[in-house]
Amino acid sequence: MIQIEEQWKKVRQVNPLVHHITNYVTVNDCANVTLAVGASPVMADDREEAADMTSIASALVLNIGTLNSRTVESMLISGKTANQKDIPVIFDPVGAGASAFRSRTAETLLKNIRMTVIRGNISEIRSISGEAGHTRGVDASSADAESDARLLAEKTARQFHCVVSVTGAVDTVSDGERTVSVENGHPAMSGMTGTGCMGTSLTACFCGADPAHPLEAAVSALVCLGEAGEIAWEKAGMLGIGSYHMALLDAVSRMDGETLRKRARIHED
Amino acid sequence: MIQIEEQWKKVRQVNPLVHHITNYVTVNDCANVTLAVGASPVMADDREEAADMTSIASALVLNIGTLNSRTVESMLISGKTANQKDIPVIFDPVGAGASAFRSRTAETLLKNIRMTVIRGNISEIRSISGEAGHTRGVDASSADAESDARLLAEKTARQFHCVVSVTGAVDTVSDGERTVSVENGHPAMSGMTGTGCMGTSLTACFCGADPAHPLEAAVSALVCLGEAGEIAWEKAGMLGIGSYHMALLDAVSRMDGETLRKRARIHED
Amino acid sequence: MIQIEEQWKKVRQVNPLVHHITNYVTVNDCANVTLAVGASPVMADDREEAADMTSIASALVLNIGTLNSRTVESMLISGKTANQKDIPVIFDPVGAGASAFRSRTAETLLKNIRMTVIRGNISEIRSISGEAGHTRGVDASSADAESDARLLAEKTARQFHCVVSVTGAVDTVSDGERTVSVENGHPAMSGMTGTGCMGTSLTACFCGADPAHPLEAAVSALVCLGEAGEIAWEKAGMLGIGSYHMALLDAVSRMDGETLRKRARIHED
Repeated sequence: MIQIEEQWKKVRQVNPLVHHITNYVTVNDCANVTLAVGASPVMADDREEAADMTSIASALVLNIGTLNSRTVESMLISGKTANQKDIPVIFDPVGAGASAFRSRTAETLLKNIRMTVIRGNISEIRSISGEAGHTRGVDASSADAESDARLLAEKTARQFHCVVSVTGAVDTVSDGERTVSVENGHPAMSGMTGTGCMGTSLTACFCGADPAHPLEAAVSALVCLGEAGEIAWEKAGMLGIGSYHMALLDAVSRMDGETLRKRARIHED
Repeated sequence: MIQIEEQWKKVRQVNPLVHHITNYVTVNDCANVTLAVGASPVMADDREEAADMTSIASALVLNIGTLNSRTVESMLISGKTANQKDIPVIFDPVGAGASAFRSRTAETLLKNIRMTVIRGNISEIRSISGEAGHTRGVDASSADAESDARLLAEKTARQFHCVVSVTGAVDTVSDGERTVSVENGHPAMSGMTGTGCMGTSLTACFCGADPAHPLEAAVSALVCLGEAGEIAWEKAGMLGIGSYHMALLDAVSRMDGETLRKRARIHED
Repeated sequence: MIQIEEQWKKVRQVNPLVHHITNYVTVNDCANVTLAVGASPVMADDREEAADMTSIASALVLNIGTLNSRTVESMLISGKTANQKDIPVIFDPVGAGASAFRSRTAETLLKNIRMTVIRGNISEIRSISGEAGHTRGVDASSADAESDARLLAEKTARQFHCVVSVTGAVDTVSDGERTVSVENGHPAMSGMTGTGCMGTSLTACFCGADPAHPLEAAVSALVCLGEAGEIAWEKAGMLGIGSYHMALLDAVSRMDGETLRKRARIHED
């Protein structure tokens, strides 16, 4: 059984510094959710300082949401630095499959960097695993079959020797041996931008606090975000997307360990 | 008579994917307002994937708010791709006239790309139309004479063979033949950053859902935003700029067709 | 005695245009806080327009939060333009000391540009002043000794012939001769991203409105932000980080001169 509450407490005790090379669309949310959970963000994407920043961090996020040739180079430098220093690397292949450049970049990053956790929607994970199928932009299509997520997560985890989180209505997290499903969350989360990226940032916060247990960290991060999405719906769902967005950040920052444990809906077969 | 409600319903039915090459100041708002109205955003600005992303989109936004030589090149690639595939292109000449670089870039884009709709404040539209007058930054000056907007919109629409939306206290939308004024909106909208850019993104959402009727789409988008600005004021205006900002996104996401039709204040002579 | 209320009224009368070359993490907050206090923002970071934009502005912000070689070049151009035209330059050395590139860039900017005000946390100001000590990312560490701030601010102000604001639980502002401490603020301000950057933007708004009195302007800006942080806590503190964020912007936009004066807690020895 994964001890969600203990994982969460570690984040608040360790206060990991999380280096992000990420997109400019949701970067403010990523910084705030990192602070909200009790970690510290640093965003830096220039090749001149990529290695320095990663070296002082407890975890590294590589998110290709608005990638360009300059930042991809920095991702390679930071990823290799993290690998050398055993710092967890969390990879978010945003929009992989939607353009040849994204697919190629994801492939390059996966060839050169040992990832700790990969988090994406089913289209993105399918794309990096080499399965057929097209991605329609960066948001999970409702046509994505959730039933395939489990097999895909397990296969991709074994393929890249890491933990894979396939997020959707139900999240599936696998290290290739163990597979856990997370049922927390609310459909409204896909109605705003940034929930995927925030899931990635939270995964990095939890991995930074407990680098020896990436499966437990990845599951706990998604439970935390999912519960926050549920609580935000209760508080502000009917008000609209702007209020829901703020309520989601509120809920992460106001989370307590007991609530987190009691509301968790995870299953491991 | 423009059927605002039907236009809006089309957006929700079609769920158009809108490719944005836009500025990093308001990009989060652009993504969220696109989702709020029922469309899907994708932000991608690298030349390596510009054509790919535009090819899978229903509409393209070119917003020069924080332009640089790298993104201008991508705008040219995406714009030409959109033209070849008959995908609507919505151009926002943010700050045109405020620097030689912006004016020159706007000119280059207009020479090389057939725009579907151009949306800007009166200073920006004056600048691209070649009229004298200086722009003071990116916000519409209160000294801008609203009375000139109609003539300017008509002239500029004929000049570039497209629809032109001159937004301000009253918005004027013209295709050179028909001219419609939109009286919805609230002065508080100019007290926060991003309302102009969001108007552009919404215009793209409506054009993506009904590419054959850009005038109707452009008017409907501005009615939708204007009404949201009014509703947001009623709900949160007195609280301040942060709450108003969220209430504006709330109102777009919670809009219903009947309200949209009943509150619309548009005039076509 | 510094006339906070009069300083604030000047901002609203002058409506200064503030050119920002800043990071993409908190840029939306910087734009909104600039509007909230009664000034106008323009964000532009390309070398092709850096001089043009600075020339029409009342103040310039140089914030190295997500610096890269392209934007550093623009900062040098804009900074020199501002110096030639006697436009105040406000420098925020975000994360100085956290990477060799940041420290080197801060040094280059300080050698080539005459700053009007430098605002940073104690680690950042220590780094640019050449004092030993390491910075842990971009957020002020709780281990920072507030008691050293006064000596540091005075020394650094004399070193660079400008005003230096060392912000923390108590803010210290010095021009090397006079030193003022600002006790307004709330610990929750460090729990969200962007308060440092917003303090820098507000400092630029106040300097743009009264360029002859940078010490008064810098103090007034921090009082304004600090009081807004207090009011935001009263209104929304217990709701969480998202609501607090919006309430902080609300409070800046809804500030009135009398409140500002009455709540101010400043000390000058």
